[in-house]
Amino acid sequence: MLFDTMDLAATFVFAISGATQGVRKQFDLFGVLVLAWVAAVAGGMARDLMIGAVPPAAIANWRYLAVTVAAGLLGFFASDLIARLRTPVLLFDAAGLCLFAVTGTQKALAYGLTPLMAAMLGMVTCIGGGVARDLLTRQIPTVLRSELYAVAALAGAGTVALGFWLGLPRHPIALAGAALCLFLRLMSIYRGWSLPVAVTRNKSSTETD
Amino acid sequence: MLFDTMDLAATFVFAISGATQGVRKQFDLFGVLVLAWVAAVAGGMARDLMIGAVPPAAIANWRYLAVTVAAGLLGFFASDLIARLRTPVLLFDAAGLCLFAVTGTQKALAYGLTPLMAAMLGMVTCIGGGVARDLLTRQIPTVLRSELYAVAALAGAGTVALGFWLGLPRHPIALAGAALCLFLRLMSIYRGWSLPVAVTRNKSSTETD
Amino acid sequence: MLFDTMDLAATFVFAISGATQGVRKQFDLFGVLVLAWVAAVAGGMARDLMIGAVPPAAIANWRYLAVTVAAGLLGFFASDLIARLRTPVLLFDAAGLCLFAVTGTQKALAYGLTPLMAAMLGMVTCIGGGVARDLLTRQIPTVLRSELYAVAALAGAGTVALGFWLGLPRHPIALAGAALCLFLRLMSIYRGWSLPVAVTRNKSSTETD
Repeated sequence: MLFDTMDLAATFVFAISGATQGVRKQFDLFGVLVLAWVAAVAGGMARDLMIGAVPPAAIANWRYLAVTVAAGLLGFFASDLIARLRTPVLLFDAAGLCLFAVTGTQKALAYGLTPLMAAMLGMVTCIGGGVARDLLTRQIPTVLRSELYAVAALAGAGTVALGFWLGLPRHPIALAGAALCLFLRLMSIYRGWSLPVAVTRNKSSTETD
Repeated sequence: MLFDTMDLAATFVFAISGATQGVRKQFDLFGVLVLAWVAAVAGGMARDLMIGAVPPAAIANWRYLAVTVAAGLLGFFASDLIARLRTPVLLFDAAGLCLFAVTGTQKALAYGLTPLMAAMLGMVTCIGGGVARDLLTRQIPTVLRSELYAVAALAGAGTVALGFWLGLPRHPIALAGAALCLFLRLMSIYRGWSLPVAVTRNKSSTETD
Repeated sequence: MLFDTMDLAATFVFAISGATQGVRKQFDLFGVLVLAWVAAVAGGMARDLMIGAVPPAAIANWRYLAVTVAAGLLGFFASDLIARLRTPVLLFDAAGLCLFAVTGTQKALAYGLTPLMAAMLGMVTCIGGGVARDLLTRQIPTVLRSELYAVAALAGAGTVALGFWLGLPRHPIALAGAALCLFLRLMSIYRGWSLPVAVTRNKSSTETD
């Protein structure tokens, strides 16, 4: 029950991030809805396909579609409102990241994966949607640039997996994982926390965005 | 039987659209064949993976491969002929769109999905190949720009799903769905029918193709 | 046993190619690890999903993750060393290509696919990782340009599949397939062997990298 609610909430915020990016790239209404849907469900679909949970929740359950369409419409018709808020894409994205890190890992654990691989799939759940969204709008995925994105997801997912392995109570661990993920992501956005980039000599071959 | 024939016909026309785009982007012969194959089968594969029909029809059945290779060779060696026809990529694409909207929805219904989700998967069948083709040639997928593309697919798929739900006879409904999809897509191409784009203030951040 | 070792070796060299490209594109440490992982396992995952082997080996078996992380760290911290070697991405890529062509085809055959389709999936195993790597770094996939890439993979995979069909002994055929694949790929890199590109009149629409 709590699991379902959190999963739908994460779906909603990821869909908002997809819709916002679609509006910025001047997609039409339907394109915005598709992008919202992809950003929201691609990660979970990848996880479900890999653990053999077919049809994926996003296909089997109409509520994901409903939530996604609602978020897409909001992102489309209230785009000026959203644009005026400070860095809304980043913040919605961060919230979805944390929720999916927890729910994705929990689902993988429920399907019998080892904690290590469940944490990996928790991360895949998180970043799959964002990667698909960025690919469809022809951007290098945020996750691969020098920000704590996938790292934050993995930290949250790893916390949940570690708690499971240690037999700790589920809900507090879920909260701790989400909090750690959110903290790292916000520090990255507002304080510029990041991981090192390799020092190379042929600077000329690097790509500028 | 009719289902199989239509599915192979749609595969052929999507493969032609993939091959044509590969030739335009100066891919080599094998690259053109791969792009023809991807454009033709990626949508159906995504659908089959999601409904648990493994191995996907495009892998289990050699005829998809044969049809795709034939279309790819035609697109490669008769590229000048195809280029002289008016907007051949768009027209072949429109034909494949309609056929896949019908066959994709029918297959999802046959696997027991609800009509709503079957219509969604019918749309995925349609646009999956085009999205994959555009990603591989580094274009923003046509489906997400201001044209009736995915909408046309969904209208056709939705007609089939609605007819199934109402218990209407299968073949007339399939024809009606395909016709509606084709009509919307052609109106988009020739009359410029389109969906609205969100009005935003920061025009500077939009991307020009 | 030999199969497992070869598969892990191919995973390692593909991961190096992913890490090297990540370093060149100035991804951060974690992004380099993710790109190494994607380049190494995406093709095998696509194959496993299509033949119904879930969870895919790359998820079920922690050794793929360990090998990938090791290769990613090497690619990150020894990037200057690797950059000084001549065209290291291309060579590592070629080695991984040949190994995956063999192991991918063998696995598909073991799951009961026909030799023709097993060869196709062997090729998918080979090129899936490279395609995913190139998509994530916003390049047109190498496989689709005028070089013997997918062709080399298919030649190696086809040799293995043909040998299986003819009932020939497994290991010599695997070696022959890998050797043929490597030969074609190296000829492409060093001698410029390539397939023809279609002659078109509208040169203006082609894309320059």
